[in-house]
Amino acid sequence: MAASTLDQVIALAKRRGFVYQAGEVYGGSRSAWDYGPLGVELKENIKQQWWQTFVRGRADMVGLDSSIILPTDVWKASGHVETFTDPLVESLHTHKRYRADHLIEAYVAKHGREPENGLADIRDPETGQPGNWTEPKLFSGLMKTYLGPVDDEEGLHYLRPETAQGIFVNFNNVVTTARKKPPFGIGQVGKAFRNEITPGNFIFRTREFEQMEIEYFVKPDEADEHFRSWVEACWDWFVDLGINPDNMRRFDVPEDERAHYSAGTIDFEYKFGFQGSSWGELMGIANRTDYDLGAHTAASGTELSFFDQASGERYTPYVIEPSFGLTRSLMAFLVDSYNEDEAPNAKGGVDKRTVLRLDPRLSPVKAAVLPLSRNEQLSPLAREVADEIRSGGRWNIDFDDAGAIGRRYRRQDEIGTPYCVTVDFDSLEDRAVTVRERDSMSQERVSIDRLYGYLAERLKGC
Amino acid sequence: MAASTLDQVIALAKRRGFVYQAGEVYGGSRSAWDYGPLGVELKENIKQQWWQTFVRGRADMVGLDSSIILPTDVWKASGHVETFTDPLVESLHTHKRYRADHLIEAYVAKHGREPENGLADIRDPETGQPGNWTEPKLFSGLMKTYLGPVDDEEGLHYLRPETAQGIFVNFNNVVTTARKKPPFGIGQVGKAFRNEITPGNFIFRTREFEQMEIEYFVKPDEADEHFRSWVEACWDWFVDLGINPDNMRRFDVPEDERAHYSAGTIDFEYKFGFQGSSWGELMGIANRTDYDLGAHTAASGTELSFFDQASGERYTPYVIEPSFGLTRSLMAFLVDSYNEDEAPNAKGGVDKRTVLRLDPRLSPVKAAVLPLSRNEQLSPLAREVADEIRSGGRWNIDFDDAGAIGRRYRRQDEIGTPYCVTVDFDSLEDRAVTVRERDSMSQERVSIDRLYGYLAERLKGC
Repeated sequence: MAASTLDQVIALAKRRGFVYQAGEVYGGSRSAWDYGPLGVELKENIKQQWWQTFVRGRADMVGLDSSIILPTDVWKASGHVETFTDPLVESLHTHKRYRADHLIEAYVAKHGREPENGLADIRDPETGQPGNWTEPKLFSGLMKTYLGPVDDEEGLHYLRPETAQGIFVNFNNVVTTARKKPPFGIGQVGKAFRNEITPGNFIFRTREFEQMEIEYFVKPDEADEHFRSWVEACWDWFVDLGINPDNMRRFDVPEDERAHYSAGTIDFEYKFGFQGSSWGELMGIANRTDYDLGAHTAASGTELSFFDQASGERYTPYVIEPSFGLTRSLMAFLVDSYNEDEAPNAKGGVDKRTVLRLDPRLSPVKAAVLPLSRNEQLSPLAREVADEIRSGGRWNIDFDDAGAIGRRYRRQDEIGTPYCVTVDFDSLEDRAVTVRERDSMSQERVSIDRLYGYLAERLKGC
Repeated sequence: MAASTLDQVIALAKRRGFVYQAGEVYGGSRSAWDYGPLGVELKENIKQQWWQTFVRGRADMVGLDSSIILPTDVWKASGHVETFTDPLVESLHTHKRYRADHLIEAYVAKHGREPENGLADIRDPETGQPGNWTEPKLFSGLMKTYLGPVDDEEGLHYLRPETAQGIFVNFNNVVTTARKKPPFGIGQVGKAFRNEITPGNFIFRTREFEQMEIEYFVKPDEADEHFRSWVEACWDWFVDLGINPDNMRRFDVPEDERAHYSAGTIDFEYKFGFQGSSWGELMGIANRTDYDLGAHTAASGTELSFFDQASGERYTPYVIEPSFGLTRSLMAFLVDSYNEDEAPNAKGGVDKRTVLRLDPRLSPVKAAVLPLSRNEQLSPLAREVADEIRSGGRWNIDFDDAGAIGRRYRRQDEIGTPYCVTVDFDSLEDRAVTVRERDSMSQERVSIDRLYGYLAERLKGC
């Protein structure tokens, strides 16, 4: 995928209100992005599909929603306070700060090999001149805050850098109240915060982001088998929702690049089309072993383990962790569904059209109701039709009567609306409308009475 | 409602995994609570009903999801940096800290009048002795964090104390990309953070909490009319979802108690049954006038206003803000649905039962499948039935084969499950099951083939 596709997707996302720069009127922030009316619907739809597939849809899973600010002891025990750090360097020319490992990665992507003399070979990205760098300094990725009236050691807390720990420390609570036994898992969707040195690449690397995480607890000797089965389940989820498998690849993370807790990690990378290296991490599946439950048992004095009544044995389960980036998934679904093709125009020729071929379950708008033209008879009937299929609030329904009908089709195509419902002058007589399908552009006449049922059949699972 | 009902609800919520203390294994935190498998489903269901009613279900509304950390200029312009403060006092006896206004309120609730000599009349809540208080000091409710590598003025940011400002600063973006004109509104659900001096009353007052907010933009001279109509719409939403109107009241907030931006506020209070005063604030509807758009226009230099093409006029819309506490709503739905009545037992007598009469749209579990007894023929068939109605992930479905059937009904009743599906020995022959409805306890025989459709009819809107 050429870099220009990514640029076009970003331009579309901004122009149509999927994503806005956070705090734009104040010059904006690189730390986070805001999701506009279409973006929030797309994001909610991804969450919902995930929750339905992996939590409600499975007998061996339950959900959880733990808090962003947990006691500081959690982050000490998990190893984050000590080891969640990045190597920070500063350019002595520009006084801008960079992650040393990112500078090296960019060098490798460009030259196909490691720099022989490390940082000394890296040019300054700002000036293009040979760089002059400070010694790398370890910098904590945890974001601090203070609870209570005084900013002291007692009040110091951290915003969670991952949702996972909130699951581990609730292991006993869930086992007891939901009466689950391994193999079983806990799923959670929520915000996480990392003090990235260099946020960038649109919504790919931000300081505030959203995750969808599963911690799946198994008998230690069954961990490998469950690991493999989760890799397949995650892959299938993306493909079932429309990601082209050619744009996704697995990366078996070598031991020296893995997180401190992992005995095995497979990352899914998606071909976002970034400059330099096209590929970026979309999610990871890790075998966290008994590291976390063991660490919290040791630090808290509360035994986080499972007593198997059948065998009479107590053991600390291993954990398989499929960890999805929600905001990265959203970006991948946008890039992957972006298409340009041709559509017939009113003059008998063809026009270029941009179309997001999103799975209808993800489409932010499920149907748009369009009067053939803005007219004192057509517009009210079209509004009535829109109100009827909107009622109950199951689907997000658009109404648009501004401009030529062809232009309005294009507007819906480029945001991925699967169905356009046109109200024309015949509709006033026959109480029927024309339903146009996004991808095939085929049209079908449907009576207004039957419209809700017609759409419901085609929007199953939405 | 007696205080003991509240205690019973809290005990039930903890026992059954609606709500856990955050970081319990480390001694817990009073700042926040975690939502367990049932709590997260209930919370998601409330969100979904809210989004369907107020966002997707209305032609004049769109959604948004802005970030928790916005540029600091946003909070300067909104007035929060300067005025979002509480009066903090410390007991010279115990060195515990309190909000002075809360101490006074508790006095008024107990004695029915203001203390004559202010704080000097207030006894120490810890010791019961006449209090000895420091002078009240203004204390900021904003929670700080630092972005970037250095904890300096440039890196200083705040966690949002309300979701509203993220909507105001995106006003132009939404008008342009969603092509909306007043009257229209923007809805948002998300976390907010306030550095409360004294968190307490279970999930009622926490430092981390969740809001569902609407900012509805109108012509200034239509503000009063829209204000009244939103008060009714919000009231109806709670009542439609089952809140007994006798347990809810409106409080017209007098001018000197209103927030700095408000020209009129009506709070809904719910009879939570707290000690002292039973009532607590559930939500508020405020007329924020053009305060916020005006303040951000002045501070940012970007004109946040609307140009009405029909009249050729530019104006700054007034804002009607219905602001719901999501976590408080969850607590109200739990308290309001809590009931104790009687159910027939196996001996021909009656047993006391606890039942959450939740609207099925809110129930965390939609149906439970129960084999009459744990049995090598019944259990597999019951699992099969459960898997079938679970598939697709639309409903959260429970399976339980542990203990006597009567006890399992009680377990489902007390978490508000509307339907129990029993698989008995006849089921092996006739491929039918018995469906029991929670409130009436009436039973109906339904063939397994028809079960999904039978439930779907009764779980409309779920």
